[in-house]
Amino acid sequence: EEMKRMKAARGQEILKYGIPDNGKDVRYYSNHVLLYDQQKRIPTWVAEHISANILKGSADRRHVKFRPDPEVEERFSAQNGDYWRSGWSRGHMAPAGDNRKSQEAMQDSFNLTNVVPQNLENNAGFWNRLEIYCRDLTNKFSNVFIISGPLMLPIVDEDGNKYVKYQVIGENNVAVPTHLFKVIIVEDKKRKPKAMGAFVVPNEPIGYDKKLTDYLVDLEALEKSLGVTLVPKLIETEGNVKNLCKVDNCKLIGRKEFELYFIGRKLESANTLHRLETVWNELEEKKLKPDRYLKELYKQKKSELTEQEKLTGKST
Amino acid sequence: EEMKRMKAARGQEILKYGIPDNGKDVRYYSNHVLLYDQQKRIPTWVAEHISANILKGSADRRHVKFRPDPEVEERFSAQNGDYWRSGWSRGHMAPAGDNRKSQEAMQDSFNLTNVVPQNLENNAGFWNRLEIYCRDLTNKFSNVFIISGPLMLPIVDEDGNKYVKYQVIGENNVAVPTHLFKVIIVEDKKRKPKAMGAFVVPNEPIGYDKKLTDYLVDLEALEKSLGVTLVPKLIETEGNVKNLCKVDNCKLIGRKEFELYFIGRKLESANTLHRLETVWNELEEKKLKPDRYLKELYKQKKSELTEQEKLTGKST
Ligand SMILES: [Mg+2]
Ligand SMILES: [Mg+2]
Repeated sequence: EEMKRMKAARGQEILKYGIPDNGKDVRYYSNHVLLYDQQKRIPTWVAEHISANILKGSADRRHVKFRPDPEVEERFSAQNGDYWRSGWSRGHMAPAGDNRKSQEAMQDSFNLTNVVPQNLENNAGFWNRLEIYCRDLTNKFSNVFIISGPLMLPIVDEDGNKYVKYQVIGENNVAVPTHLFKVIIVEDKKRKPKAMGAFVVPNEPIGYDKKLTDYLVDLEALEKSLGVTLVPKLIETEGNVKNLCKVDNCKLIGRKEFELYFIGRKLESANTLHRLETVWNELEEKKLKPDRYLKELYKQKKSELTEQEKLTGKST
Repeated sequence: EEMKRMKAARGQEILKYGIPDNGKDVRYYSNHVLLYDQQKRIPTWVAEHISANILKGSADRRHVKFRPDPEVEERFSAQNGDYWRSGWSRGHMAPAGDNRKSQEAMQDSFNLTNVVPQNLENNAGFWNRLEIYCRDLTNKFSNVFIISGPLMLPIVDEDGNKYVKYQVIGENNVAVPTHLFKVIIVEDKKRKPKAMGAFVVPNEPIGYDKKLTDYLVDLEALEKSLGVTLVPKLIETEGNVKNLCKVDNCKLIGRKEFELYFIGRKLESANTLHRLETVWNELEEKKLKPDRYLKELYKQKKSELTEQEKLTGKST
């Protein structure tokens, strides 16, 4: 109306030297979408969609490196050097393991816009198990939607007041989140939303004594502390959307399965017979029984690598 | 190109349940423009344009109250109650004193989207003097553009690491900035940018011993720590834009003038003869000599109020 037009016209005058630009546009990549926070040098949220089919592929993380996002202005970008010797690992929000479909998707997931400073044990442990849990959901549900990101939660200090306090690392003051969140939506075969789970996890080591359900939170509460409505179109159908941990069990893989998973990853990436045997022997050392998948993988890799080393004349 | 189109198409699938919404749109008001931070419940930046003509007017702050911005979703909004008994005052970014042109502009400036928790002495003292300095610039320069906002600067803690730490107040965790910034651009008569000054001021009491130039900063450095390019279109003509404090003196009004200014404000808002005389007597108590403006104001108000009280039969 008239009032709105007048305000817009006045706005034109006020903003004669340009609209202040905080890089607020949503950024689209091969297999994920994100909003980047130019002030904190980390994403605000990263959205993904996975299915059994999308997870297939053989793009390899060994062929890519973490790098500043080429689409972000340098002075607002994190650099690899900010993370070095900081005590914090580079934690993917859209995991590399969800991006094996293509080498582009894999590379995109290594942009530092998809990364936050993450506690190393958390990254390699609980958070990794949560990511595996999400991938495993694609065996039960046709489509899985995931939004992940960092969170800075206030604490009550000695003076009785509430404070938000977070470390910043490197020359570019990359913000270290106090917590990480993940919202998971699973669809039924008819592609209707079936269940939703929102989780907030502290950015610190979390052992096998903790369950995923310990970190289940109310989506509304998460959105309020984030200042973001995460799934605006889900609300319309909310009545039918169940609690993910009631529909599924929200059980993360245990220590033994997790170790087998890692040995599987190492077998997959072994590039010499010698390396293959070393990894295979780990099973015995750790008193782990290989499952059928591992046995098959070992056999297949062994014949592949034998053939290859015969051709190149390389001896084990 | 093709790649971009593919990413956008994949993005559509990924964001099936809506684009996460952090309320990123720039908001236009009668006499200011701002970006609101739904997470911190304070603005990111507030832009204004003032001139001698725009500053004219008689809209009165006594007729308006601070209020949650009606355009902001309630769960992402600050409330007056968040500020009560918090120890922090409600500090305008676009000052009430710049919005006397109309009652709408005045009311808009009292939206809590234009407000940050500000140290009371800072608000009533140094920051107020800085605002007066901006208004005084309109006597020397045809047009003045101002961008103001909050800042959270990191500090090195006892453990040697850098941290950002800020208080949050009330139920809605309204963020208390550690610093405030103001960027001022003045134009010459040809409406070309003549000079620019960027200032960062700690959110704490600042006395008369400090000069405005003590807080002069590099615009680039401010933008980097804010994560915002504040005046994108100024850069093009940067070569010609001088340092404001070299073109002007950047001198804030002194203690005596500031007290006279306050007495002027009180005289203006006096609504009984009794109140008018009380304020006038303050001058003598404080051993301050009224200038011509104050003398004229006193005479005019006295005759107005005498007339008025005669009509309503009210006696002093
Ligand atoms: Mg990881
Ligand atoms: Mg003020």
